[in-house]
Amino acid sequence: MTESPEIPQTQTGGAKPKTAGRPRNEGVRRAILQAAYAILVEQGLADFTIEAVALKSGVARTTIYRWWPTKGVLAMESFLEAFRPQLAYVHTDNAAEDFRNLINSLVNTLSGPAGKIAASVVAEGQRDAETRRLFVEAFSEPLRQESTRLIRKGLEQGRFREDLDISLVLDAAVGAIYLRLLLCLPIDPTWSSSLSVTLLLGIERG
Amino acid sequence: MTESPEIPQTQTGGAKPKTAGRPRNEGVRRAILQAAYAILVEQGLADFTIEAVALKSGVARTTIYRWWPTKGVLAMESFLEAFRPQLAYVHTDNAAEDFRNLINSLVNTLSGPAGKIAASVVAEGQRDAETRRLFVEAFSEPLRQESTRLIRKGLEQGRFREDLDISLVLDAAVGAIYLRLLLCLPIDPTWSSSLSVTLLLGIERG
Repeated sequence: MTESPEIPQTQTGGAKPKTAGRPRNEGVRRAILQAAYAILVEQGLADFTIEAVALKSGVARTTIYRWWPTKGVLAMESFLEAFRPQLAYVHTDNAAEDFRNLINSLVNTLSGPAGKIAASVVAEGQRDAETRRLFVEAFSEPLRQESTRLIRKGLEQGRFREDLDISLVLDAAVGAIYLRLLLCLPIDPTWSSSLSVTLLLGIERG
Repeated sequence: MTESPEIPQTQTGGAKPKTAGRPRNEGVRRAILQAAYAILVEQGLADFTIEAVALKSGVARTTIYRWWPTKGVLAMESFLEAFRPQLAYVHTDNAAEDFRNLINSLVNTLSGPAGKIAASVVAEGQRDAETRRLFVEAFSEPLRQESTRLIRKGLEQGRFREDLDISLVLDAAVGAIYLRLLLCLPIDPTWSSSLSVTLLLGIERG
C-alpha cells in the first residue's frame, strides 16, 4: 500500500476520527468506506466488524484501526459519506415549498439503504451510548441545524406562525420517518407529501 | 404451587399468549409479570431471559414457558399490563382538548420506565422480526385505533380539517415521542404541550 500526500478529510460533523498523524490515501479511504457501507446495508450495525471490512476492502485491519479507532466511528463515517450528498437544502422565496422539498429529500433518501442503516444505528444506540452519541453529534444535530435555518427563513418571510417551536416541528417530522423505519412500515413520495401537508396545515381548521 | 379456578386474562390486544389448556393462578401470574417488568426496567429487553424471571419470581421456568412460549410474548404482556392502565382516552365535546390530553398521557407514561422498555423493544425489533410484529400488533396498533377514534370525533365535530390524514397525525405524534426516547432526549409536560400545539396549529400562518 502506498501513502500519498495528505488529502482533506470528508466533513463528518463533530465525529472526526482521530488520525494517528499518518497521511491518508484517498483511494484506500474510499475502498474502506465503500466496503463498510456495503456491509452495513447487508447486515446492519449489530454484525458489522472491522474484520469484515478488512476482508471486503482488502486493506489490513491494522490500517483501518489506525484511521478509525472503533467500528462505530467507521460505520458513522461511511454512512455520512453515502448519505450527505443526497440531501437537498434548497432556499427559495417560498419557505413552505422548501420545507416540502426537505421532507421529500429526507424521505427519499431514508426509504433506501441509508434508512436501514439509520434504523440499525439507532437500535444499536440503545445498548451502546457511544454509538448513540456519535449518531446525534455527526448526523442528527447537523441535520437539525440545517433544517432549522430553512424553517427560520419561513419565519422571516412571515409565512410561518410567529410562535412556532422549530425544534418540535423537527421532532415531529424526523420522528414520523424514524417511527416507520423502525417498525418497517413503508415510506414513499405519497406518504412524504401527506406528512408535509399535515405539518404545514396542522390538525385544526384555520 | 396451587392452581385456582380459571381467571379471566388481562386484555393484551392481539398478543394473547397461547395457553396450554391449564387454568392460571392469578397471584402467580401477577408475580411473574411483575418480576418480568422489573427486569425489563432495569436491563431492557436485550438481556431479558425467562431464566432471570424464574429466579426473581420464584416460579419454575417450566411453568413460565407453559404460559408464555417465548421471552418476547412474556415481555410484551408484562409491558402492556403496566402500561395500559395509565393511558387516558377521554372523549369530551372538545376534540382538541381530548387530543392534548391523549398526547400528555402518552408523554407522561413514556417519560417513565415504560418508555425505556418501549425503546428497548423497538431496538430489539430491528434484529428480531417476531418481537417487532408483537410490538406492532399488541401495542402500536391498538393505541393507533383508539387514537384514531378520538381524532374522528374532532372531524365529526367540525373542529379538524376535513381532509386530515389521521394516520399521518399519529405518525408525527408518536414518532416525535419515540425519536426522543431513542436518542435519550428528555420529554416532559412542557415539551408535550408544545407538541400538541405544533400538531394542532401547524407550521403555516392561518
